[in-house]
Amino acid sequence: MENFIAYNPVNLHFGKNILSSLGKTLKEYGNRVLLVYGKGSVKKSGLYDRIMKDLKAQGFDVCEYGGIKSNPVIEDVDAAAAIGREHQVDVILAVGGGSVIDSSKIISVAIPVPNPGWDFFTGKAKAEKAIPLVAILTLAATGTEMNPFAVVSNHATGQKSAFGSPLTFPKHSFLDPELTLTVPRDYTAFGVADLIAHCFEAWFGIGDTTLTDRFVISIVKEAMEYGPQLMSDLQNYEYREKIMFAATMALNGMTMYGRSTGDWGVHSAGHSLSLLYDVPHGASLTIVYPAWMRHFKDRIENRIVQLGAGLFDETLTAGETINRIEAFFKSLGCPIRLSDLNIPGDHRQPLFESMVHNKVNGGNVKMKEEDYWGLIGLYL
Amino acid sequence: MENFIAYNPVNLHFGKNILSSLGKTLKEYGNRVLLVYGKGSVKKSGLYDRIMKDLKAQGFDVCEYGGIKSNPVIEDVDAAAAIGREHQVDVILAVGGGSVIDSSKIISVAIPVPNPGWDFFTGKAKAEKAIPLVAILTLAATGTEMNPFAVVSNHATGQKSAFGSPLTFPKHSFLDPELTLTVPRDYTAFGVADLIAHCFEAWFGIGDTTLTDRFVISIVKEAMEYGPQLMSDLQNYEYREKIMFAATMALNGMTMYGRSTGDWGVHSAGHSLSLLYDVPHGASLTIVYPAWMRHFKDRIENRIVQLGAGLFDETLTAGETINRIEAFFKSLGCPIRLSDLNIPGDHRQPLFESMVHNKVNGGNVKMKEEDYWGLIGLYL
Repeated sequence: MENFIAYNPVNLHFGKNILSSLGKTLKEYGNRVLLVYGKGSVKKSGLYDRIMKDLKAQGFDVCEYGGIKSNPVIEDVDAAAAIGREHQVDVILAVGGGSVIDSSKIISVAIPVPNPGWDFFTGKAKAEKAIPLVAILTLAATGTEMNPFAVVSNHATGQKSAFGSPLTFPKHSFLDPELTLTVPRDYTAFGVADLIAHCFEAWFGIGDTTLTDRFVISIVKEAMEYGPQLMSDLQNYEYREKIMFAATMALNGMTMYGRSTGDWGVHSAGHSLSLLYDVPHGASLTIVYPAWMRHFKDRIENRIVQLGAGLFDETLTAGETINRIEAFFKSLGCPIRLSDLNIPGDHRQPLFESMVHNKVNGGNVKMKEEDYWGLIGLYL
Repeated sequence: MENFIAYNPVNLHFGKNILSSLGKTLKEYGNRVLLVYGKGSVKKSGLYDRIMKDLKAQGFDVCEYGGIKSNPVIEDVDAAAAIGREHQVDVILAVGGGSVIDSSKIISVAIPVPNPGWDFFTGKAKAEKAIPLVAILTLAATGTEMNPFAVVSNHATGQKSAFGSPLTFPKHSFLDPELTLTVPRDYTAFGVADLIAHCFEAWFGIGDTTLTDRFVISIVKEAMEYGPQLMSDLQNYEYREKIMFAATMALNGMTMYGRSTGDWGVHSAGHSLSLLYDVPHGASLTIVYPAWMRHFKDRIENRIVQLGAGLFDETLTAGETINRIEAFFKSLGCPIRLSDLNIPGDHRQPLFESMVHNKVNGGNVKMKEEDYWGLIGLYL
C-alpha cells in the first residue's frame, strides 16, 4: 500500500423524505441563502417550488442563480458569486447534479474574494475561506456530493479543469433517491457509466491495496447488476436507490485508500470531447475508456486481467475484458464511438489540438502526443 | 435500504513513518499535551521514549497518565481526567490500542466538566465540549481510531457499557503498521477475530443494503485470507498493514450505510465474560459468536446462508457456515469455548446474573432470559 490520508467531513443524509431536516440544517449557518440550480429540470419536477415554499415558510432570505449548464462554465460561477457577494449570503444551497454542485463549490470560495472563479483553477487565487455549502442531489453520477472536487469549463481559454481543497467539501448533502426518478433514460445511463469510470480511474492508479481493490470491484459489480435493471424500469425506487448510493461510494475517497494517485487519463481525454462538442461527461467516458484500455493494453495488461476476473468471476484475457466492458456500456445505450453521436465534420485535428492544449495525461499511465493520435483513432 | 447519515470527520494518517507529522498536527491544538498509554508495551517497544523525546524537542509541555488496563476501567479514566484538568491541557495524545483510545475519548469529554466519567454512560452528563484527541494506534483490532465509540467497565456497578457522541471522534489518528509488528501472537489473533465480529454485527443488523453487504464481505474475506498468513509470519509488514487497514474499515461506519442498526448482541453477551473473568475482548467474541449463531439459527437462517455464500463462494447450509467460521477462529488459535480458557469454577449462574444485570440484548435479534441460558449452555 501507498501512504494515504483518509479525510471526508461531509454529513451525508440518505433516504426517503430526507429533506425534512433541510431547514434545520441550513439554520446552523444563518438566514441568507443563495440557491443555485440548473437549466430547468428542478422547476419542471416541482422541486424548486417545493424548496422555495419550504424555505420561505421557515423565514429564510433567499436569493438565487439558475441556469448552470450541464457542462458547467466559469461565467455562470462568476455571475452566481456576484449575487452571493452582493447579498452577503450565509450559506449556499445547491440543488441539482454534478454541474450545479461543482459550480457551487467554486462559488463558495469565490464569494469571499475579489478574484474571478477561474483564478482558483490556475493557482492565482487560494481557497482560504468558504461560504458553507449544502447540496441536494438530483442526479446519481459524479459523486461530487461527498468529495471536494469541482470540474468547470472555460471556453475563453479552451480548458476544462478540476479544483478541490479541504474547504470545498459540502457541509451537508441530501440524497433522496426519489428525486432521481425523473432523470431521463440517457442521463441515467451516463450516470451508471460515470460511476464505473470513477472506479476504474482508481483501479488504474498507483498503489497495491487488496482490500481497496475489493471495494472497487464491489461498487462496479453493484452498478453492473442493478444498472441494467434500472434501465428497464426507470421508475423503480429501489434501483434508483442502489445506483445513487453506488455513485456516491465511487468517488468519496474510499477507492483511493492505499493509493498515491488515481489515473484520470480517461477523464482528461474525455474533457476534450465535452469542450469541443458538448458531449455529456458520462458519454465522453464510455467512448474513451474502451479506446484507452485497448491503446495501453500492453502496459496495463495485468490490471485489466485482474479487473476482468473480479468483475466477471472468470478468467478472461485483457482483450476479452475490454470487449465485455464495452459491450456493457453499449447495452446501457451509451455511445462507444464518437461516430455514434453523429457530429458532422472531421474531428481528428481539433481533438488532437485540444488534447495538447489541455495537456491530457494520466497520473499513472503517462501519455505522449503519439498516444493522443492512437486514442483518437480508436474512438472516432 | 434504511435511511442513514454518513458522517466521519476523522483525519486518518496511514502508512510507513507516518508519525513524522505528529508534532505539526498537535501544534494545531496547542502546547500542553496529556499523553495517555497502557500497561507497559509502549515503554517496552521504545515507542514511549521516541514520542517523549520528539515532543520535548518540539517544545511541548507534556503531562501523562499510564497504566490503562486492557479491559479499561472507569477509575483510570477519572484519574487521567483529573491530571488533564489540573494541567489545563490543550490536546490529548492517546498511544495504544482500543482500551487506551476508548478511555481517552471519555477523558476528552470529562476534563471540561466536574462530573465523574461514568456519568456519560448513565446519561447524567452530556458531552458538550471535548479536549481534541489525537491517537497513535499500536494494535489492529477495535476500529476505535476511526469512530466515536468507547467501551469502559465499571466494576463497582458490575457494568461494561458503550458511549459515543459526535464530539468523541479522534481529530487525527496515526496508523503505522510497523508499530504493530511487536503485538504478540494471541492479541494478533484476537484483533483479526474482533474485526470480523464487527463486520458480523453490521451484517446481522437491520437494513437490506446490497452494496454495503459487498463491503462487509470484502473486509471479512480480506481478514480470512491474510489473517492466517499473518499468524504464520508475525513480523511481516505487508500482512500487518492489510490487517490494520481492514480493522479500521470494519468499524468506521461504512458497514452501516443503509442499516438502521447493527445487532451487537454478541458484543453485549461477550462483555459479561470480560467483566467476570477478564477475558480479552476479541476472545470473548470467538466464544460467543458461534454459540449465538447456533442458538438463533432458525431466526436468522437466511442471513447466515448469505454470509456463507459470500465468504466461501459456495452454497452452504447455515450449520455448515457456522462450523466453517468457528473452525476459522480456532485455526487462529482463539478460544471457541469458555472451557478453552481453563477458568476454574461453575460459571453458569454468575454469567446469567451478569447478563441480566447488563441487560444483554441485540438491536435486531432480541434476547429473553431463556436465550441467555441457551447461549451459556453452548459456550461453556
